[in-house]
Amino acid sequence: MRGLLVGRFQPFHRGHLATVVAVRQSHPDEPLLLGIGSAQASFTAENPFTAGERAEMIERALTEARVDGTTALPVPDIHQHSQWVAYLQGLLPPFERVYTNNPLTRLLFERDGFRVDAPPLVDRERYQGAVIRRRLVAGEPWQELVPPAVARYLESIGAADRMQRIEGRA
Amino acid sequence: MRGLLVGRFQPFHRGHLATVVAVRQSHPDEPLLLGIGSAQASFTAENPFTAGERAEMIERALTEARVDGTTALPVPDIHQHSQWVAYLQGLLPPFERVYTNNPLTRLLFERDGFRVDAPPLVDRERYQGAVIRRRLVAGEPWQELVPPAVARYLESIGAADRMQRIEGRA
Amino acid sequence: MRGLLVGRFQPFHRGHLATVVAVRQSHPDEPLLLGIGSAQASFTAENPFTAGERAEMIERALTEARVDGTTALPVPDIHQHSQWVAYLQGLLPPFERVYTNNPLTRLLFERDGFRVDAPPLVDRERYQGAVIRRRLVAGEPWQELVPPAVARYLESIGAADRMQRIEGRA
Amino acid sequence: MRGLLVGRFQPFHRGHLATVVAVRQSHPDEPLLLGIGSAQASFTAENPFTAGERAEMIERALTEARVDGTTALPVPDIHQHSQWVAYLQGLLPPFERVYTNNPLTRLLFERDGFRVDAPPLVDRERYQGAVIRRRLVAGEPWQELVPPAVARYLESIGAADRMQRIEGRA
Amino acid sequence: MRGLLVGRFQPFHRGHLATVVAVRQSHPDEPLLLGIGSAQASFTAENPFTAGERAEMIERALTEARVDGTTALPVPDIHQHSQWVAYLQGLLPPFERVYTNNPLTRLLFERDGFRVDAPPLVDRERYQGAVIRRRLVAGEPWQELVPPAVARYLESIGAADRMQRIEGRA
Amino acid sequence: MRGLLVGRFQPFHRGHLATVVAVRQSHPDEPLLLGIGSAQASFTAENPFTAGERAEMIERALTEARVDGTTALPVPDIHQHSQWVAYLQGLLPPFERVYTNNPLTRLLFERDGFRVDAPPLVDRERYQGAVIRRRLVAGEPWQELVPPAVARYLESIGAADRMQRIEGRA
Repeated sequence: MRGLLVGRFQPFHRGHLATVVAVRQSHPDEPLLLGIGSAQASFTAENPFTAGERAEMIERALTEARVDGTTALPVPDIHQHSQWVAYLQGLLPPFERVYTNNPLTRLLFERDGFRVDAPPLVDRERYQGAVIRRRLVAGEPWQELVPPAVARYLESIGAADRMQRIEGRA
Repeated sequence: MRGLLVGRFQPFHRGHLATVVAVRQSHPDEPLLLGIGSAQASFTAENPFTAGERAEMIERALTEARVDGTTALPVPDIHQHSQWVAYLQGLLPPFERVYTNNPLTRLLFERDGFRVDAPPLVDRERYQGAVIRRRLVAGEPWQELVPPAVARYLESIGAADRMQRIEGRA
Repeated sequence: MRGLLVGRFQPFHRGHLATVVAVRQSHPDEPLLLGIGSAQASFTAENPFTAGERAEMIERALTEARVDGTTALPVPDIHQHSQWVAYLQGLLPPFERVYTNNPLTRLLFERDGFRVDAPPLVDRERYQGAVIRRRLVAGEPWQELVPPAVARYLESIGAADRMQRIEGRA
Repeated sequence: MRGLLVGRFQPFHRGHLATVVAVRQSHPDEPLLLGIGSAQASFTAENPFTAGERAEMIERALTEARVDGTTALPVPDIHQHSQWVAYLQGLLPPFERVYTNNPLTRLLFERDGFRVDAPPLVDRERYQGAVIRRRLVAGEPWQELVPPAVARYLESIGAADRMQRIEGRA
Repeated sequence: MRGLLVGRFQPFHRGHLATVVAVRQSHPDEPLLLGIGSAQASFTAENPFTAGERAEMIERALTEARVDGTTALPVPDIHQHSQWVAYLQGLLPPFERVYTNNPLTRLLFERDGFRVDAPPLVDRERYQGAVIRRRLVAGEPWQELVPPAVARYLESIGAADRMQRIEGRA
Repeated sequence: MRGLLVGRFQPFHRGHLATVVAVRQSHPDEPLLLGIGSAQASFTAENPFTAGERAEMIERALTEARVDGTTALPVPDIHQHSQWVAYLQGLLPPFERVYTNNPLTRLLFERDGFRVDAPPLVDRERYQGAVIRRRLVAGEPWQELVPPAVARYLESIGAADRMQRIEGRA
């Protein structure tokens, strides 16, 4: 059985990493697909990083944490929820188990007979993409909220400058 | 002459029904098209029900109320107002009279030579899709705001649970 | 149980009518949806008539033939076969039985658990949209290939002239 | 070298005109492209005027002000920032210098090796499309915020009435 | 009154130039819009040149021939003929007269009340985009089929090499 | 440096495998991205298999052949060649070297400063997706043209039956 976990990963933070680690430990024999949602979007306030940059973050973070058995794949939006499950089934390699804490996502997959598990959420208040993006804009420290490899990568691509420009500053 | 009335019908409520009844009574010899707007959307806060579910609500409500002479047709959005009238003329059977209380819709159709009538609005404060959707989310009573056949249908498809999941609850 | 039959109906001809009559007779208690495929297309060699004109042909032909229990609905293309069934389930009222002689359509619906029946094909060589369109272009007789009400309607909208213009003639 | 300045011009106001005049004076030998952004949009609160109407405003205003050397071209949105520069390079005649005060636009063009200049902003508080659109809705004076030729044109197409209808009034 | 002439201009050849000259001479007081059709396409066998390159060809050819009073504007395809006229009316500045030799285009515009004229076709057998593209691929002489300024421009952008690569050669 | 090789892989055959092996051997220190082109398409004559099925074929074939260092990623079409390189740069992790034997693809990437290499083509006449798809339709042997793991996978998903249905047979 293969698992699927979809997120926007803007950016990939410690909460995401903890979830992936937990899922891999609970089902070590099941490969895990990481769907990079809203893959078509970038350079916006909600989606500052390209799908490719997000794949790069994920790869570096998982290598650093020595997590294997995952594959990150871009998933562009289709904006039509009634086709969402069929769309993912066409786009991605076969999967049978879905990890989500979103009630609607759970509903959509359960209607089509998927097994849906709720992965653990680690320190949800603290580790949120929106918080990190806000700190990048404000010039406040954000580095400790992401894995060290992601922090280095974000610095190398000028993430704070990009966020500030997107918000019309700088 | 055939008439056209476009709405999103999320859900089809007593106000919609009263309008349809009034239009049919005032022009009993003119068939009436009901355009189901935003037909591509579903499972969102603004558009929780699929176009097909909305067609089903309309059919059940009109059968219950013994209203005939109407046809409900899905109308996906095109997001380009300057083409809206031409789009509807291509998608739908010929129509000559348009029923709307929206000033912009009136403008767009009148520019192309259509006859535009303002249908009666019945108890507009009370019968609104947004109010019903909010009650579904809050777990408050909503049944009396829709025709009995629609209330039974919405219960059969788990409308309150769906709305709560869409809003991230449940 | 409700049935579904999808076609492009360019134009709606005697073969289509015979199929609809046969389906209605074999399942008189099951309402039948007629999906007007490629609904977004018109004024092309393959799709000369708008979805609305095709709905009008269907209504006139079925009224003339005293066939009831059907509803014709526009179905714009999505060009993504793996989402086709989910797309139709969202767009159309609930249906459980699908009528098709297309092997791929059968496969796609059967994969999702639908009942699929093969409707009778009446004089398939003779009654084909492509044949009728070719005759319209060539100025040859085509009227006997469609129901009388459709022939009158096509003449009223200048179908032969339109086809010839589409093909660059006239 | 050719220059490019992209705006939505909803409507084309005195601030826009002052910028164009300044750019033309500072580089009189470089033709200037005016990209009409969100060209596909019209009859909405943010984008009330069609691309064609905006081109007409620009032409009348520049003729009135005796500014030459510019060409106004429609630029429909693509909603994908990472392709924005490549998209403009395909759509528009060759240009080498970009005029913008938007930090993100500057970043996107500089990444691809363009020369980016910041044009002067004249009385930015006063001359804003949003302010003018708000006044049109409110029935307050707006005429002095646009060049006289634009004021006359907007009156001739019923701009205030359109804005009020879009906002659900009138 | 303003005129409109839509073409793909792949590339802009002597036949196009002769038509523009004739139109301008017959209606010297009417500005002429040149709509660059299929503006979104480039680097394909049918549409090798970008909309911007085509605009550049047109400008150079008309400058060389001392033709004024025209404006070339990109027109991306919409693929829905029933909305074609409404689409152009939104995208382009106001126009009242349409120049075309295509019977379908004539039909679509006449249905909406436009004045449609047939411009002269000069040596139609010889001056065709398809012929020129074929010669570019085959390495045969093509230069005399386009205005001298276009020939120089096409050579400067490596048109023959591009066409050959598109066709899988080189 | 990371490499990129885009193909449709309909299906992934021995020629593809030989190319991947050769690329990996020639640059063992450079990870290789395999872009699954036309990812949105499936169940058509040209693109019978979903992107997910193609990813599965690739994974099984490369595991069988003990080839590592590759990642297969879906690449939906955008149909606009002038944005193709920018699109891939946004969608995929950073890459610097492109492998292609297509002259146009080479041109598009070289214009943007990429290093482009021509990978070896192994027995090009024999190993072609079109040949394999034709054999699947005709019921002729095709198994030896794909890696054994792909042959088993294609049989498990009923590839021959699917191709025959797509072509209107069966």
